[in-house]
Amino acid sequence: MAASKILIAQGGGPTAVINQSLVGAVLAARRFRGVDFVCGARHGVRGIVNEDLIDLTQETSENLERVAVTPASALGSTRDKPDVKYCQEIFKVLKAHEIGQFFYIGGNDSSDTVRIVSEEAARAGYPLRCMHIPKTIDNDLVGNDHTPGFPSAARFVMQAFAGANLDNAALPGVYVGVVMGRHAGFLTAASALARTLPDDGPHLVYLPERTFSTEAFLADVKAVHDRLGRCIVAVSEGIHDASGTAIASQLAKSVERDAHGNVQLSGTGALADLLCDEIKDKLKIKRVRGDTFGYLQRSFLGCVSDVDQREAREVGERAVQFAMLGDRDGSVAIKRTGQYAVGYELVALDSVAGKTRVMEDELIAASGTDVTDAFRRYLQPLLGSDLPVTARLRAPAVAKVLNSAR
Amino acid sequence: MAASKILIAQGGGPTAVINQSLVGAVLAARRFRGVDFVCGARHGVRGIVNEDLIDLTQETSENLERVAVTPASALGSTRDKPDVKYCQEIFKVLKAHEIGQFFYIGGNDSSDTVRIVSEEAARAGYPLRCMHIPKTIDNDLVGNDHTPGFPSAARFVMQAFAGANLDNAALPGVYVGVVMGRHAGFLTAASALARTLPDDGPHLVYLPERTFSTEAFLADVKAVHDRLGRCIVAVSEGIHDASGTAIASQLAKSVERDAHGNVQLSGTGALADLLCDEIKDKLKIKRVRGDTFGYLQRSFLGCVSDVDQREAREVGERAVQFAMLGDRDGSVAIKRTGQYAVGYELVALDSVAGKTRVMEDELIAASGTDVTDAFRRYLQPLLGSDLPVTARLRAPAVAKVLNSAR
Repeated sequence: MAASKILIAQGGGPTAVINQSLVGAVLAARRFRGVDFVCGARHGVRGIVNEDLIDLTQETSENLERVAVTPASALGSTRDKPDVKYCQEIFKVLKAHEIGQFFYIGGNDSSDTVRIVSEEAARAGYPLRCMHIPKTIDNDLVGNDHTPGFPSAARFVMQAFAGANLDNAALPGVYVGVVMGRHAGFLTAASALARTLPDDGPHLVYLPERTFSTEAFLADVKAVHDRLGRCIVAVSEGIHDASGTAIASQLAKSVERDAHGNVQLSGTGALADLLCDEIKDKLKIKRVRGDTFGYLQRSFLGCVSDVDQREAREVGERAVQFAMLGDRDGSVAIKRTGQYAVGYELVALDSVAGKTRVMEDELIAASGTDVTDAFRRYLQPLLGSDLPVTARLRAPAVAKVLNSAR
Repeated sequence: MAASKILIAQGGGPTAVINQSLVGAVLAARRFRGVDFVCGARHGVRGIVNEDLIDLTQETSENLERVAVTPASALGSTRDKPDVKYCQEIFKVLKAHEIGQFFYIGGNDSSDTVRIVSEEAARAGYPLRCMHIPKTIDNDLVGNDHTPGFPSAARFVMQAFAGANLDNAALPGVYVGVVMGRHAGFLTAASALARTLPDDGPHLVYLPERTFSTEAFLADVKAVHDRLGRCIVAVSEGIHDASGTAIASQLAKSVERDAHGNVQLSGTGALADLLCDEIKDKLKIKRVRGDTFGYLQRSFLGCVSDVDQREAREVGERAVQFAMLGDRDGSVAIKRTGQYAVGYELVALDSVAGKTRVMEDELIAASGTDVTDAFRRYLQPLLGSDLPVTARLRAPAVAKVLNSAR
């Protein structure tokens, strides 16, 4: 049995910093004296069963550092969710390659994969150390203050709404921006950090933690538009009616589901278009524009939180330290220890696996269409340094000469 | 008559650097000894006729510098296109406020506004110096090497496709990104600069300078997907069929037109969704995702080319210098004088006004779905410094033990 042979893989949706975790783990593993082999599986668990492995002991540190700052999953990813049979295939390969430690970087679906693999290994009597390294832009892992990948995506959403707000102030109308997030509204809520002055947008924020009503939505938009002559709306792709049915899935001509049974919400502009059509039709507002942030919010090259980069690197490094120096499988969790400082703990896989964290009630305003100061305090330090600043002209009005009555 | 009183306004779509031109002009004007009043009209020509003016001599230089790095039009913008009657209203206000110099920052529609105002002023015998300061993300002003605003938007598009390419490599499928550009494909073409390695996307680039055929499109996508197992497509919102009808406008439930008679193309995800549906239906490819970059590409806070910032500042400053030191109305044009260096010339308003530059043939590959090296040489220096870099893992494959036949 070889604790000295390590396999690492990446699962689920890519993020801006998932390669930091990969590189953190690889470099940490290569530093441990007992480790003589570090390999990566291409495209997650699928790469394991296909024996599609690459030898990461033959990567230069220089190139690894460049990969670390490259967004998306450098090893490739997968949406496969292994069942027992799939896991038996995984074992065959791990055993044949004398792998002693398995690291899987991913979200709550991936942590469930790690849990199943860990249990199957125990059942098969194979001594395999299984570690889950967290990542997800949705920020929906339980037991974590936040999840690597979320801060950078939140920064993108914040910067996007800050710009959209300025654009909309220049050419007034209604602007609807649809943000990723099936069950958890954290990423959509990040839009609220775009505000500097009291009349800055987003003026309304719709989260999947609250039931969406088209009637209330239209009334909200009308009220803001009547007051300011414009309105910026942030909407989660996961908004749903009282029955729990996603508004987006009510629209889709054909519903596409992934291997986890989740309805495909991203990669289409249908929800933004529907909401815009409703506003045009019912409120008779002429200039109504909708954008769906789509894959840009998780893959855009060059928008990253340095706090997120550091932490993503650290969770990878800590996972290897927990594996080499500890005696149990688990998931590395980020705990906030100060404002702002963090520590890392190894938590049980079944405390994370397959569970979904949503926004706590104290983070959502009583109106249901905004966040609280507690959320702003929570998110602000995660966005990182060197945030771009904006300013408005403050010049006084020139006295009218001709049209003094206007 | 007062050459010492100056009015400035911003028209058309906002950009990341249009406020650099505003601030360049305001600071230059405030430095000229003879100038004792600089005012700005809120929301372009509409602000003039409404006497909605602010006193820019009462802005601190510090705040102006912060406004300069703020995207979107700080004075507000408009889509109004003045006719003769509208221009008579403009004169009344300019005369009442003893304005001697009128600066309008905008695209080709705005330059036409300046031309009409200039001609109406001459006809009315009113001594008004009229200057057009260029901006447009579409890069479609004739007589200019390029136009302020375009380089920053091009940088956004490049960074977006570089990220989308990495995301798509991690989770393969077809990705369609729709980019702004009604008649000119420059911004869509900028996507090609995202490539580093030969198999990087975008693999196909569809420009409004070429006729779009859905059949050819599907054949192109299939060929790339068969070869690479994935495909990244960049599509201009302005793609049209042989009759010149925009593909996007064929889809719209109701066609919305602006004051210039242009069909509204942005602010909807319909084109991306249509193309994705075609690919799913006809090519039977399962994972097909579409994003419409929408307003993000012109308003995103924090993605800007420093070259663009400097030049936008300079065209504003040069416009004031041409006005104060010269003897004719005109439009400031950027001329490339080296690789890479530029100079500025004052060109006749009617040489720019209302005309549309499209991509020259030598910039478009013979295939019609890519750009040429000439385009890459043209665009590269405009993107600015500190471009984010990316890297791939280069580790060799691990020899298969179990599935050697796979």
